[in-house]
Amino acid sequence: MVRTLLATVVLCAIFLSRGEAEVQPSLSLMPMPAKFQLGNGQLLIDPSFSLAITGHREARLEGAVRLFLGQLRRQTGMPPIDMKIADSGNASLVVRCAAGTKDVQELGEDESYRLEIGGSGAHLSAPTTLGVMRGLQTFLQLVHMTGEGFAAPAVNIEDSPRFPWRGLMIDVGRHFIPLDVLKRNLDGMAAVKLNVFHWHLSEDQGFRVESKKFPKLHEKGSDGLYYTQEDVRDLIAYARERGIRVVPEFDMPGHTSAWFAAYPELASAPGPYGIERKWGVFDPAIDPTREETYKFLDKFIGEMTSLFPDQFFHVGGDEVNGKQWDANPKIQAFMHAHGMKDNNDLQAYFNQRVQKIVSKHGKTMLGWDEILRPDLPHTIVIQSWRGPDSLAQAAKLGYRGLLSSGFYVDLMWSAERHYRTEPMSGAAANLSPEEQKRVLGGEACMWSEYVSPENIDSRIWPRSAAIAERLWSPQEVRDVNSMYQRLPEVSQRLEWLGLTHNSSYAPMLRRIAGTDDVSSLKALTDVLEPVKDYTREEIPTAPPSSASPLNRVVDAVRPESAAARQFSASVDALLASGPRPETEAPLRAWLSRWRDHQAELQPLLAKSLLLKDVAPLSQNLSALGAAGLAALYYLDRGEHAPDSWATQQLALVEQAKKPQAQLLLVVVPAIEKLIRAGAGQRLPSQSATPLPLSETPSILTAGQNRRKDGW
Amino acid sequence: MVRTLLATVVLCAIFLSRGEAEVQPSLSLMPMPAKFQLGNGQLLIDPSFSLAITGHREARLEGAVRLFLGQLRRQTGMPPIDMKIADSGNASLVVRCAAGTKDVQELGEDESYRLEIGGSGAHLSAPTTLGVMRGLQTFLQLVHMTGEGFAAPAVNIEDSPRFPWRGLMIDVGRHFIPLDVLKRNLDGMAAVKLNVFHWHLSEDQGFRVESKKFPKLHEKGSDGLYYTQEDVRDLIAYARERGIRVVPEFDMPGHTSAWFAAYPELASAPGPYGIERKWGVFDPAIDPTREETYKFLDKFIGEMTSLFPDQFFHVGGDEVNGKQWDANPKIQAFMHAHGMKDNNDLQAYFNQRVQKIVSKHGKTMLGWDEILRPDLPHTIVIQSWRGPDSLAQAAKLGYRGLLSSGFYVDLMWSAERHYRTEPMSGAAANLSPEEQKRVLGGEACMWSEYVSPENIDSRIWPRSAAIAERLWSPQEVRDVNSMYQRLPEVSQRLEWLGLTHNSSYAPMLRRIAGTDDVSSLKALTDVLEPVKDYTREEIPTAPPSSASPLNRVVDAVRPESAAARQFSASVDALLASGPRPETEAPLRAWLSRWRDHQAELQPLLAKSLLLKDVAPLSQNLSALGAAGLAALYYLDRGEHAPDSWATQQLALVEQAKKPQAQLLLVVVPAIEKLIRAGAGQRLPSQSATPLPLSETPSILTAGQNRRKDGW
Repeated sequence: MVRTLLATVVLCAIFLSRGEAEVQPSLSLMPMPAKFQLGNGQLLIDPSFSLAITGHREARLEGAVRLFLGQLRRQTGMPPIDMKIADSGNASLVVRCAAGTKDVQELGEDESYRLEIGGSGAHLSAPTTLGVMRGLQTFLQLVHMTGEGFAAPAVNIEDSPRFPWRGLMIDVGRHFIPLDVLKRNLDGMAAVKLNVFHWHLSEDQGFRVESKKFPKLHEKGSDGLYYTQEDVRDLIAYARERGIRVVPEFDMPGHTSAWFAAYPELASAPGPYGIERKWGVFDPAIDPTREETYKFLDKFIGEMTSLFPDQFFHVGGDEVNGKQWDANPKIQAFMHAHGMKDNNDLQAYFNQRVQKIVSKHGKTMLGWDEILRPDLPHTIVIQSWRGPDSLAQAAKLGYRGLLSSGFYVDLMWSAERHYRTEPMSGAAANLSPEEQKRVLGGEACMWSEYVSPENIDSRIWPRSAAIAERLWSPQEVRDVNSMYQRLPEVSQRLEWLGLTHNSSYAPMLRRIAGTDDVSSLKALTDVLEPVKDYTREEIPTAPPSSASPLNRVVDAVRPESAAARQFSASVDALLASGPRPETEAPLRAWLSRWRDHQAELQPLLAKSLLLKDVAPLSQNLSALGAAGLAALYYLDRGEHAPDSWATQQLALVEQAKKPQAQLLLVVVPAIEKLIRAGAGQRLPSQSATPLPLSETPSILTAGQNRRKDGW
Repeated sequence: MVRTLLATVVLCAIFLSRGEAEVQPSLSLMPMPAKFQLGNGQLLIDPSFSLAITGHREARLEGAVRLFLGQLRRQTGMPPIDMKIADSGNASLVVRCAAGTKDVQELGEDESYRLEIGGSGAHLSAPTTLGVMRGLQTFLQLVHMTGEGFAAPAVNIEDSPRFPWRGLMIDVGRHFIPLDVLKRNLDGMAAVKLNVFHWHLSEDQGFRVESKKFPKLHEKGSDGLYYTQEDVRDLIAYARERGIRVVPEFDMPGHTSAWFAAYPELASAPGPYGIERKWGVFDPAIDPTREETYKFLDKFIGEMTSLFPDQFFHVGGDEVNGKQWDANPKIQAFMHAHGMKDNNDLQAYFNQRVQKIVSKHGKTMLGWDEILRPDLPHTIVIQSWRGPDSLAQAAKLGYRGLLSSGFYVDLMWSAERHYRTEPMSGAAANLSPEEQKRVLGGEACMWSEYVSPENIDSRIWPRSAAIAERLWSPQEVRDVNSMYQRLPEVSQRLEWLGLTHNSSYAPMLRRIAGTDDVSSLKALTDVLEPVKDYTREEIPTAPPSSASPLNRVVDAVRPESAAARQFSASVDALLASGPRPETEAPLRAWLSRWRDHQAELQPLLAKSLLLKDVAPLSQNLSALGAAGLAALYYLDRGEHAPDSWATQQLALVEQAKKPQAQLLLVVVPAIEKLIRAGAGQRLPSQSATPLPLSETPSILTAGQNRRKDGW
C-alpha cells in the first residue's frame, strides 16, 4: 500500500509542472488535483442533470451519489424532485467504480479517481468507492455560475492523495461540541478530501462518551454533556458515508481529572476530584503502578474498541507533569523496585502495558510525541506536535508518524502559515525513501478552550481547507497567492453544507452591540484578529474557564482578516507603483471608513458592556485611518511629511501594535508602511518578506510549544 | 371558556391606555402585553442566573424551563454548564404555576401570566403551564445588552391573549418542507406566542403523510417526500413542548390529484392521474356519489385522527371547479335523483357525509369558507379567506370562525398591511357580544408555490410576528410606527432560534452572482421586492412548476425592503423640514450608492445567467439615483428644475414602476417625490396616506381572491 502511494506521489509530481502552467483563476479547486488539463466548452448543469452508476455497485456508493445530488441541488438551488439517478449509462455524469470498499475503512485504501468533463457529459471512474467520493467532491467544486447558467468546465483530471492520513482533530473535552456541529464539520472535511476524524473524547474538563461498563465516567465526568453510544454509532456511520475514518482518543495517564471525578481510585493521589473548569496542565494522573488500573483499562478499552471500529486507537499520552507520581511514596517505591530512573520511565512502562491491552483488543495504538520510546513495538503511530524533526526522528527509529505541529487551528494563525507547514521539511526532508513512507500525513487540530458550537466552524474553516491541500496535493503545489485566490470560493461553498463560519459572524456582532445595525462595529471588527498562539491566557480578563461565556468580540472576529490582507496588498501595490488615482481610491475609502467609524460606534459603546473593551481599538483605528489619509496626501504631492508628524504617528503605531482585549488591530503594519513612505523613510524590510516554507520565527515556535509546557 | 376570554379582553382594553402611554423604545416586545408598567433598575443576567420552580410541577413545565434556559444561553452566548435550575426558591427567576395542562392541548386553555422583574430577582406566575410558557417568552424578549451586561428591565406585566386561536399554516404540499425547517418555525411561533400549527398536508402537488392503511398515498403521491408517522409524532411532541397545537389538513374533495395518482378510483373521471407539477386550480375532484368514497374516507380519517391528537380536523373544501362533476353522467344522475340544483349542493352533501365521519372519530371539523352551509352542525369551524364580512356572516349563523384573509404571507405584502388587518372590522365590528365570541382568531398562511427550505423562513418572518401581535395584543395596540420600531429586534431574536430569514439572503445572492463579493448586487436587491399578490404568475418566465428552481433574484429578495421604507421616511422628513445637511447626508449616501452600483455590477452580469434579468432594474436604479441627486441639488439651491428635466425624469419614473423579472423597484415612489419637489410640483397625495385599518384597495383584494378564483 505504502509503495503504491509513493509511486502515485512521484507520478503526481511529474504531471504537476504541466498542470500548474495551465491553472486558471476560475478553477477554484481545493485541494488542487495531482494532474488536470482544461478543455474547451462546459457542461451545463440544469434541472435535467442526471447521474448513472455503471460497474461495481454497493450501498456506500449509492449513498455517496445521493449525497452528491443533494449537495449539487443545494449549491445550485434546484428542487429535490430534479436531478435524478438514471438507469442507463446515458446520463449527464456516468460513474464507474471498479470495486467496493472494506467494511471498515482502512488506512491507505485507494482514493484515486479520474474525472473527464466534456460539453455533452462527464465520466468519473475510480478503482474504489472512496475514489468516486473524492471525484464527486471535485465535480461539486467545478460547478459555477456562468452566463449560460450553472456549468462545469471541460476538464480532464487524474488525481490521488499525497498522504493517506489527512485528519481533523476536534477536542470535545474542554467544550462539548454537539453531534450536529460535528456532522456539519464532517461534511466540510469530505468537501476538501480530509479522511480522518480524530475525536478527542476525554479531558480534564470532561469525559464525553457513554460507558456502559463504567457509567459513572459519563454520569459524573461530563456535566451531562456526552455522546450516547447510539450517537457514536450514528456519527461513525455518517463519517463512513463520506469516506472518513473515525479515530477515538482517550487521553491517559494525564488529562484525566474528569475520569477521577467518577473513579478517584484510579488516580495517583487521594483526591477528592471534580471536573476541571480551568485551562492548563494539571497534576492528576492515573496511577501506573496498580494492577487494578490495568484491569479497569482492559475492560474500558475493550468496550471502546468494540464501539469504535477503526484500526487505530489513540491513547493521548501528552503533558503528564508527574507531580502526583513524585508525591506518592508507593509509586516512588515501585519505580525504585523496577529500576526506573524518572517519570519518563514510569510513563513508558504505563504505555507498554496499555499498548498490550490495545493490541489484545486488535487495535493499533496511536499517541502524542511523548509515547515515543524504542521499547514500544514498531506498529504504533506517533502524532507529532513538536514538528517535522521529531517526525523524522520517529521515522528513523522505524515508527510511523503524523504531523500536527503547524496545524493547530486554535492558535489563530493565517491560512498562509498553515499552508507553508511542510511535513517533509527539516530533518524529514533528508529521510530515506523507506523512512519517508512512514510519514503518513497530518492532522489539523482544533483544541477547544475558546470554541463553542457557535464559533467553532469559524476557527476550523476555511483555513483547514489550506491544510487539506497541503496533505492531498503534490508537494509542489504551494503558491500562496493561488491559495488565497481560491480560498474565498471554497469558503463560500462550505456554507452550502451548513457550516456557519461566515454566517455566525453578524449575529454575534449584533448580540454584542445589542442592536441590529452593526455596520460601524463591523468596520472595526473586520480588521481585528484574536491574539495568536497562547497569549490569550496572558492578558488579564475574567479568569477563563469552561464556564466563561464565549460571547466577546475576540470570540466573534475571524482568525484571519481578509480585509487587512487585501488592504496590505493594496498598500504594497501603491508603494511599488507610486500614487495613482485608481490604486489610491480603494485605500482612501478604507482609511476614511476607519477614521469615521469611531464617531458612529460611540453611542453603541455606552450601551454595551461587551463593547467597552474595544473602545481603545476603535480609537486607534480611527487615528490610524486619519494618519493613513495624511500619508496619502504627502505621497500625492511628492512631499515628505515633517519629522515631527512622522514621530507622532509612529508613536501611535507602536501604541496600536499592542494587543487590547485579547485582540490585534492587524492593519497597523500596512498603515505604518504608508506613514513611513509619507515621511520619506525606508521601509523596514522584514514585514514584507514572506516566511520561507515551514520555517517559523522562534518566538512563535516557542509559543506553540507552550501548550505542552504547562502554562 | 369563551366567556372568560372575553372578560380578559375587556380587562386588557381597560389597562391598555396606561400601558401605551408608558411604552419605551427599549421595550421591544412583540406581541405587546395586555398591561405593563416599567419600574426602576434592571435584573442582570450573567452566568450565575438561576431558575426555580415552585407550585405545581409537571414534565411539560420542566421541559419548558429547560428550553427557556437553552434559549437564554443562546441569545446571551453563555455555555451550557451555566444558568442552572435551582432547588430552592432563592433563584434569579422564580416560576410558580397553579395547575397543569390537559394531555392534549385544548382551544381556549388559560394562557395568562403575570411577570414581575426587579433589580434582585423576577417572579413569573400563571394559572397553567401554558401561561408560564408565554411568560418565559416575554422574559426572553426583555433581555438585552446594557452598559452593565445582559439585563432585563424592572417591569410588571399582566398578560393574556385577545384570541384563543393564533395560527400559522404551512402548505407542505406544493413544496415539501423538511421536518427540521418546520421545527425551527415552531420555535419562531412560540417566540411570538402563536399557538396553532396548521399543517396543510395534501395538495395536487403532493400527499405528505405516511398512511399505513393506504400506503400508496405516500408511495405514489409524494415523490418520496413525505413525513413518516414517527416524524408526525415527533413534530406534535415538539409543538406540545412549546404550547402549540397541531391541526392537520387533508384538503378534499378538490386539490386531490396526488391522491388519485395512488387511487384513481376515488376520482370523478377515469384518469390516468399523476402528481401535478403546475400551480393553479385543477379539475380532479373526489367522486362524492360513490359509497366506496366514504368507506375509504372513514378508514383514512380514522387513521389520521388517531395520529393527530388535536380536537380539530381540517378537511379543506376549497376551490372545487366542478368540471369533473359536470362531465360525469353518473354524478349528474345522482344529483338529479337527490334534487341537487348545482355543484354547491353536491359539495355540501359531501361535506355533510365527511362531517359525520370526522364526528364519529371524535373530532371537530374545520374547513375553508366554501364549506359554510346552514345544513352543517354548528360545531364546525370556518376558516375565512374572504375577509371579516364572511367571518361575520358565519358568526351570525352560529358558526365559529378564523380569519386568514389579510394574513396570506405568500402575497408579499408589507408587515404594515398584515398588521392593519383586523378580524373585528367590517361587518364583524357590528356583531353582538355573543356572536363576537365565535371569532376565535386567525392564521398566517404560508402557501408554498414559491418557497423552498432555503427561503421559506424569509417569507414567514419577521412579518408573522406582526400578525401574532394582531391576534394576541388588545385591539387598541395598532401603532404601525411602534411595530416597525420593534420588528428589527424581534427579527434578530428569531435568528437565535435557528431561523434563516436573514442569514439565507447573502448566500443566495452569492450563488446568483457566482462570487463572494456581492456588495454591488446587494445595493440593488436591498431595494427590490417580489411582485405582490398573484402577479408572479402573469409575468412571462419559464413555466413555473414544482420542478422550477427557486434560485432567482425574486426568490432571494425579502418581501419587504427595510431600506426602501427607511429611505422613504427620510425623504418625507426632508420634504417636511426643508433641505438641511443632516437630513440630506443619508439621502445623498443612498442615492450615490444607487447611482454608482451599476458600474460595479456590470462585470458580474456577464458572468451570471441568473443576473441577466435584473439588468434593467439595475439601470433604472442607477438613473433614479442620479435623478434623486439632481433633485437634491435643485432643492438645496431653492430652485425649480426646468420642466424638460422633470418630464424626462418622470418618464423614467413611470418606466421604473413597471415590474421586471417579477421584481419591483420599491424606492421609485420616494424618488418620484424628490423629483417632483425638485421641479416645484405638488406631490400626489395618495402615496403618502397610510391605508386605514383593515381597508385595502380593491385591486389588491381582487388579487388576493384570485387564488380562489382559479388562475
